[in-house]
Amino acid sequence: MAYENTEIKGRLANLRKKMAELSVDYYMMPTSDFHNSEYSADYFKVREYFCGFDGSNGTLVVSKDEAGMWTDGRYFIQAENQMKGTDVALFKMMNPGVPTISEYLVKNMKSGQTLGFDGRVISTSIGEDLEKKLSDKGVSFKIDKDLAEDVWTDRPELPCHDMYVLSDELCGKSFKEKLSDVRKKMEEYGTKAHLLSKLDDIMWLTNLRGNDVECNPVALSYAYITMNQFVLFVQSKEVTADVKDYCHKVGIELKDYHELTSFLEDIKFEGDVLYDKRNTNFLTYKTLLKKAADCGVKLVDKYNPTELMKAVKNETELKNIREVYVKDSAKLTEFIYWVKQNVGKVPMTEYTAAMKLDGMRAELPGFIELSFPTISAYNANAAMAHYEATEDNAAEVKAEGMLLVDSGATYMGGTTDVTRTIVVGEISDEIKKHYTATVSGMLNLAASSFMEGCTGRNVDTFARAPLWNIGLDYNHGTGHGIGYMLNVHEGPHNIRWRFAKGADEQALLPGMIVSDEPGVYVEGSHGIRIENIVEVVDRCKTESGKFFGFEHLTYVPIDLEAIDKKYMDAKSVEQLNAYHKAVYKKISPLIKDEAVLNWLKEATREI
Amino acid sequence: MAYENTEIKGRLANLRKKMAELSVDYYMMPTSDFHNSEYSADYFKVREYFCGFDGSNGTLVVSKDEAGMWTDGRYFIQAENQMKGTDVALFKMMNPGVPTISEYLVKNMKSGQTLGFDGRVISTSIGEDLEKKLSDKGVSFKIDKDLAEDVWTDRPELPCHDMYVLSDELCGKSFKEKLSDVRKKMEEYGTKAHLLSKLDDIMWLTNLRGNDVECNPVALSYAYITMNQFVLFVQSKEVTADVKDYCHKVGIELKDYHELTSFLEDIKFEGDVLYDKRNTNFLTYKTLLKKAADCGVKLVDKYNPTELMKAVKNETELKNIREVYVKDSAKLTEFIYWVKQNVGKVPMTEYTAAMKLDGMRAELPGFIELSFPTISAYNANAAMAHYEATEDNAAEVKAEGMLLVDSGATYMGGTTDVTRTIVVGEISDEIKKHYTATVSGMLNLAASSFMEGCTGRNVDTFARAPLWNIGLDYNHGTGHGIGYMLNVHEGPHNIRWRFAKGADEQALLPGMIVSDEPGVYVEGSHGIRIENIVEVVDRCKTESGKFFGFEHLTYVPIDLEAIDKKYMDAKSVEQLNAYHKAVYKKISPLIKDEAVLNWLKEATREI
Repeated sequence: MAYENTEIKGRLANLRKKMAELSVDYYMMPTSDFHNSEYSADYFKVREYFCGFDGSNGTLVVSKDEAGMWTDGRYFIQAENQMKGTDVALFKMMNPGVPTISEYLVKNMKSGQTLGFDGRVISTSIGEDLEKKLSDKGVSFKIDKDLAEDVWTDRPELPCHDMYVLSDELCGKSFKEKLSDVRKKMEEYGTKAHLLSKLDDIMWLTNLRGNDVECNPVALSYAYITMNQFVLFVQSKEVTADVKDYCHKVGIELKDYHELTSFLEDIKFEGDVLYDKRNTNFLTYKTLLKKAADCGVKLVDKYNPTELMKAVKNETELKNIREVYVKDSAKLTEFIYWVKQNVGKVPMTEYTAAMKLDGMRAELPGFIELSFPTISAYNANAAMAHYEATEDNAAEVKAEGMLLVDSGATYMGGTTDVTRTIVVGEISDEIKKHYTATVSGMLNLAASSFMEGCTGRNVDTFARAPLWNIGLDYNHGTGHGIGYMLNVHEGPHNIRWRFAKGADEQALLPGMIVSDEPGVYVEGSHGIRIENIVEVVDRCKTESGKFFGFEHLTYVPIDLEAIDKKYMDAKSVEQLNAYHKAVYKKISPLIKDEAVLNWLKEATREI
Repeated sequence: MAYENTEIKGRLANLRKKMAELSVDYYMMPTSDFHNSEYSADYFKVREYFCGFDGSNGTLVVSKDEAGMWTDGRYFIQAENQMKGTDVALFKMMNPGVPTISEYLVKNMKSGQTLGFDGRVISTSIGEDLEKKLSDKGVSFKIDKDLAEDVWTDRPELPCHDMYVLSDELCGKSFKEKLSDVRKKMEEYGTKAHLLSKLDDIMWLTNLRGNDVECNPVALSYAYITMNQFVLFVQSKEVTADVKDYCHKVGIELKDYHELTSFLEDIKFEGDVLYDKRNTNFLTYKTLLKKAADCGVKLVDKYNPTELMKAVKNETELKNIREVYVKDSAKLTEFIYWVKQNVGKVPMTEYTAAMKLDGMRAELPGFIELSFPTISAYNANAAMAHYEATEDNAAEVKAEGMLLVDSGATYMGGTTDVTRTIVVGEISDEIKKHYTATVSGMLNLAASSFMEGCTGRNVDTFARAPLWNIGLDYNHGTGHGIGYMLNVHEGPHNIRWRFAKGADEQALLPGMIVSDEPGVYVEGSHGIRIENIVEVVDRCKTESGKFFGFEHLTYVPIDLEAIDKKYMDAKSVEQLNAYHKAVYKKISPLIKDEAVLNWLKEATREI
């Protein structure tokens, strides 16, 4: 007899009972929190609870008689294993003949039926798309009820951790100054109110931080802004005495996180309302829409003004970031030394190496948390885009090939992100060729000059050219913005080359920081990525206009064991030597161990 | 007493009389023909007739009591001089406080009044914009009458020159094959009819040519296409017996050019209608719109399918183009030799030098016409964007500095475009620095490899990088497409770097040809531009994807007298030497004069 997963089946039965009670015919559970954060807390793992599959991407749809789970190619095998005996069908996204979720719903749902989902965990674009496609069929929506609430009895708590206040000195700009800038933008857009749903924007604006999302120092929150009011919605339990005092002092009105919907239902808008559709969940959007119609005002969809303000770092932030990056660089350099000294001598796996590095970072003064889970990938594993070593499933690192380590942390004074691919033994000539081209690309972009007005699409090719010249490419962007004591990925700028019709592009501006991370990935063989973070700086102003460039923030040696000069042009050799000279100058004062220092000297030698 | 231009005043009085007769309160005259061609024939110079100003950009608006003429900064002085004593006010476009035409009309026109213009010389976007802005004010439009028709008694004829047929062998693809491709696209867009207004597209599609627009081998025409009909509207007088036979043979139904409007009024659309708003004039658009509404069908606005088909040259076209470019290159090389030999010895002006070159080109077998009026600009004149030397107004070319020559022709087998900046005497070290960087940029772009999907915005910076690195830029695009025995400027691809929100971008595809023309312009001192035409070619296909690159089509020496190796990196030196080696190999067989050949050997020497 086939294996039956009675636990999952029981949970689904309870869910279906609830659905019947509420007359919900189809219930959809995606993977998100209320703010589309990069990492969702356990509280939000509803899909996992009801089907057993715990990959990072999946949407479960349940009806009276059927259940289906959609995920992408990374997870087909894992999902099949984890959903065995649950009677949940696996829908392999992007595979030929496999319907999308909306196609499936359009095909199966009947007039008069109801589609349910928690409107807080669905993006507005997905919600609107479903509405558009299903409204013709006479399907109703129930989006104001999270059915798991009553069914999932041992559900983890909603994350709720103490918030804290950053000093104006540390932030370089007070909340009041920032708020005044936001209000100017609101005026410019002809709006009188602004609902802000994006967690890192709210943190940046208020100079507050929290700890409700893994690796992101943010509190679950919303902010409602008018010309004379600033309301911050956070869980009351997170508000420490310090935070309360600060809010009182600077004029932040505190309300509980769960009051948002009722607050919006009660409010009267005095003018048009600014919001950012990309970051507003469907329930909030619908609530806003209804209220705006009631008040006879319009919703104005624009990027949150805070997004660009936050991306262009102020002088204080830059000063602190530069210092933090040097400290972080020195620590990573010590780690590289440790790997090279110990590989083949002590037991080492991808996982234990990552643990070692995380521990070293945690010792640094001002350490808050990792900025993302450290990626540690050995040889062929490094060629897999989303490879994640775990304690139970990690390759042994032997004295051959390379170990790719992509890591970073948030400290008081900045958030870091850096990748080095460390040679731990013999490597082939082909790998050296790939490695050298990757390094040339990273340095070539960092050394480029470009005119005011250039976006990431104009400069991305500087990083790719040395790879494209030998028929190689990497299937990811070259760069992303990084927060200040905030999320490791932030917009609005990035460095990518592909044309997307109608997509907006943000010009690079002095004060922005951005990653520069080309790579080479050869399936089954090796993966190389070299990532520095660079700062956009003024280069010169001439009669032709303003020219910008980059300065490195990251100062970690690039492994010369994988560099072969025959694959490099003279300019790249010069750039590498100049970079290594700077690395030694910047980080050697922070390295106390004589042996490491001697090694560093050698590792940054001129070639 | 102030000077009075009684001739212009008399013409304006006649126009106003006509306006009164037809109850037109404001009459607008822009600068265009019916197809928004790059060059307008004398027949279309209505604005010049009524105000005296003959610059290349200007719009005249006349009301009962006032007349105003809008032009841009290039022409303020000329317009003031030419309009003296006419009582026509000059509106300096883009100057602070100066209203745009639509702002002026919105301010001055009153409810119940009528704005008139010839709807065939106004683009749809401008027409729609005026409609939108003036409709609220209760303004009516009269767009079906060219008032100059009755007033301008000695008006030149509408250009009307014999058309001719190109053989299928010369075109590489027959009309029928091309038409079948167009119909496939029409189907793909869900349309049953297609109105084509773009002259070079019509010529390309029919394998016909004409001579109604200066420098463009095109006939004034429209084409109406359904799944079983192809109607070509051209002036009956242009249709030679050959053309008539050909059309009969391939199934082209001929109608007179002037029948289009009545044809559209009588027709019945059987399905949605494909058109390209960018290239359809306002009267035609309104006629289509009304008829579509009457027939209950939709207008579908897409780029003409012919535009991309025409841009990707077929193998026959490419073979012929390559040959033609070598011949044209050899001729230009002989001209450069002539300039260098004769400067300072014989009388030479910018104008006579251009005449000399034009004459040399005209001697080449298969020469049809210049592809644009030759630009010949000496020293500081070369720094002016729209400088045009005329017989009466041309600088003397002396044995010092440089002469910039931008020129080209259409031959049986291709249309050329090439710029060289020729050293004719002493030049400064600064000029050498600028010249060397310009050449490095041109060669750097031409040598680049790039991935399938790249548009001009991705690769433009390859040409600019050497200039940007020294704080220089040029205020024009790097490249434009070029027709096959057609217009010297064609889309849909180009090479430009600036971001324009929502603007479409065409990926570069093998078979496209495009110019590569960086430059440096220093006001009052010098202008440098080096322009090669390059062909997009396949480079390689790897696991990362497809890579494309460029091959030169132009083979003309680059003036080594202006190159200083100290301003060049090793890679650029290599590229220049390789290019010069190819130049000698390609064109030396065509050069018969021993002296020129000896000079060429020296001019293409390795550095």
